[in-house]
Parts: sequence; structure tokens; C-alpha cells
Amino acid sequence: MTATPGTGPADTAALAVLGLLANSDLAAVTRLAADAEVAPSVVDRIELCRLVGAAAERLGRIEARAGELGADLADVVAPFLGTFTDFDARTPPGSWWERLLKAHVGFGVEDDVARLLVRGLDDGDEATRALAQAAVDDDRHGALVVARVTEATAADPVLASRLALWGRRLVGEALGVVQRLVTDHPELRGLLERALADASPDQPLQQRLFAVLTAEHTRRMDRLGLTA
Amino acid sequence: MTATPGTGPADTAALAVLGLLANSDLAAVTRLAADAEVAPSVVDRIELCRLVGAAAERLGRIEARAGELGADLADVVAPFLGTFTDFDARTPPGSWWERLLKAHVGFGVEDDVARLLVRGLDDGDEATRALAQAAVDDDRHGALVVARVTEATAADPVLASRLALWGRRLVGEALGVVQRLVTDHPELRGLLERALADASPDQPLQQRLFAVLTAEHTRRMDRLGLTA
Repeated sequence: MTATPGTGPADTAALAVLGLLANSDLAAVTRLAADAEVAPSVVDRIELCRLVGAAAERLGRIEARAGELGADLADVVAPFLGTFTDFDARTPPGSWWERLLKAHVGFGVEDDVARLLVRGLDDGDEATRALAQAAVDDDRHGALVVARVTEATAADPVLASRLALWGRRLVGEALGVVQRLVTDHPELRGLLERALADASPDQPLQQRLFAVLTAEHTRRMDRLGLTA
Repeated sequence: MTATPGTGPADTAALAVLGLLANSDLAAVTRLAADAEVAPSVVDRIELCRLVGAAAERLGRIEARAGELGADLADVVAPFLGTFTDFDARTPPGSWWERLLKAHVGFGVEDDVARLLVRGLDDGDEATRALAQAAVDDDRHGALVVARVTEATAADPVLASRLALWGRRLVGEALGVVQRLVTDHPELRGLLERALADASPDQPLQQRLFAVLTAEHTRRMDRLGLTA
């Protein structure tokens, strides 16, 4: 049986991944633009606007891919629109550094989940896979955060320990978002099961998933010189 | 005498225009992203994010053009960074419609000023002229505002008269921004003098300038079905 675009189970999974990615980019546009507005230097403001542009551009490519699968971007993203509402309400950043770190930790966990999801996608869906990979590969925001945070914490050990604490708080909340996502979206759960099939198959999915996400978070905090 | 990039009077004027345009795009990224966040429909949210992307992309082209003139975008935009601070503080929108109209009136006046400024630029500077023209020619935001406002006011005459009042308030504040801009930036004043040389030369510059800006504002409000 040949799947009609937008109706086969493989397409359903791909559209769910596209919806999740689109929601991340919609959120990234808003978050990065708000960060740009309060950036302490015009150089950082310009760089953050450039990253806003990159998120908007990805959104356009996601829309094009959804179109190829016979779906409309608005419909595809709709089930994911509330994903970060609780997270944002629970983690209002108190300073420029907390803002930078919040975006970095949030984007990091989103990227890690995206990386796993595309691993679970049907092998034939190279177009969706490439889209998710492009988002994951763009490290410009990470590079900005590393430069600014390491510079600031080098001269201020109190800031370093405050940000380390903030990072732990953020990753805890981000894992909560992932947990709800997996519960609410069985199609994504299926992809993650497939992606993590080889990792300690006796453990429940969430435990295997959180092990990967926590390890990646620790690696990111290490890069910032902060204790995870 | 051949002007060295970034040092001749023609380049000084072009860099001032690029700085003003860059500031408009930095502000547009922030404003449109904030509007997208509170858009009542996901379709409008996506469209506004697309327009955020267009503003960010223009910013990249302005940066490239400033580079050709031997200047850095951060230096070029710096003198214009506070341009909208007062305007924004004095005109907090009270509803989705007021938000849409605020952006439309603000972008409209910015576009009208940009159109005049490039008319005053040295004839040889086609690259800067084309950049400003591209911003002016992009009517996607205008089309969105017209569609949404005419739809809403058709069923609600009270909203229509409130928005007409809000439009008058906005254009008054926007003309105040232009007035300060002309006072603070003699290089822009020179371009406007040149652009408006044929229009009632016995009148002071500000009077000729405001006549053009007010006429264009009236035309925009007509298109929205609102009394200017």
C-alpha cells in the first residue's frame, strides 16, 4: 500500500516532528527577539536578531516540507502551541545572564529531543531529518552564550554559582516539559522508543530518555564552566 | 577628489540612512515578535513571524552594504538606537487592534521618511537606494492589518471610531519622532531638503515634510476605512 501524503503512519510521525520543530521556532522568534531588546550591547542585539532571522527562516522551510506532505503549517503546529507555557511561567529570568542561560538550556534540550526524534523517523524521510538536523547544527546561539557567560563568570565566582543553580532549576523544568510531551503525544513516544531501542532496553523509556538529556545538559554546562 | 569609502560626505549621508533603516529593522524584529506572541490566531502568528524574518534579513543586507562602505553595522546604527524609545513609552497599545494599527502607522511613517531620504541620496548610490526601496515595497504587514482591521470594524463601529482616534494619536507621536530625528541629524536634514526642494520652497522644511507625511497617513487610514 502506498501512503497518501499526510495520511500514512510515517507521515503522521513526520508531521508531529515538524509541528514540534515549528513550535520551537515560533517560540525561538519570540524569546530571542525579547532577549535582543534587552541586550546590553548593540553587537549582541544584532547577533540575536540574526538568530531570530534564522529561526524564522527555518519556520519557512518547515512550512514548505509540511506542504509537501499535504499539510498546512498552522494545523501541524497547533497541537504543540502550549508546550512551553508552563516552563516560561515557572522560569522568569532575573538577569541578562539568566536569560542567556535559559535560552541555551531550553534550546539544548529541544535540540537533543529533535536529534532523537529524527533518529526514530522512517529512513526514507530524509527531508524532515535534514530540517531537524539543520536546527541542531546551528551553534551560533551556543557560541554567543559561552563567550558571554565565561567572560562574566571568570571575574565573578558568585555569579558562576548562581548560574549553576539556575541551570539545574532550568533543566529540571525542561525535563518536565519533555515528560508531558511524551505523555501527550504517543506518535512522538513511538519515535523515541525506536531511537532509544538499543540503550538499556530493560529500563522504562523515560529513564533512558532522561539519561541522554541529562548527559547532554552536563556537557553543555561543562562547556560554560558551570557545575551541572 | 575621489571619496574613500566611509569618509566622503555622500557616504556619510548614506551611512546615516543605513543606520536609520537598521534601527527600524531592529525595532521591527522586536515589535513584530511581540505582536506574534499575542496574536489571536496561529495563522497570524506564523505570518508575523515571517515578517520578523524579513526584517532580520533586511538587517543582514544593510550590514553587507555598510561593510561595502567600510563601516560596521553596530557603529552605523548606534546614533539611532533611542529613536523610538519615547514613542513606545507614550503609546502602549491597549488591545490587539491597537497593536496592529500602531505598527502599521509607525512603519508607514518610517517608510515615508525612508522614501524621501533615498530620493535625496547621491544618484550614484543605487545599492543603498534599492535597500530602502525594498523595505518600502514590502506591503505584507499592511495587507495583514487591512484584512484584520476592516473585518473587525465592519461589525463594530465603536471599534472603528476608537481606532480612528488611536490613529490620530499615533501619527502625532510619530511626527514628533521625525521632528527630533531631523533636529538631531543634520545629515538627514540635508537629504530631506534635497528631496523636498520642489515642494513649496517658501515653506520651512518641517512644514513641507509634515504635509507629505500627513497625506500618506491619511491615505493609509482611508485604506483601513478609518477617519484620519
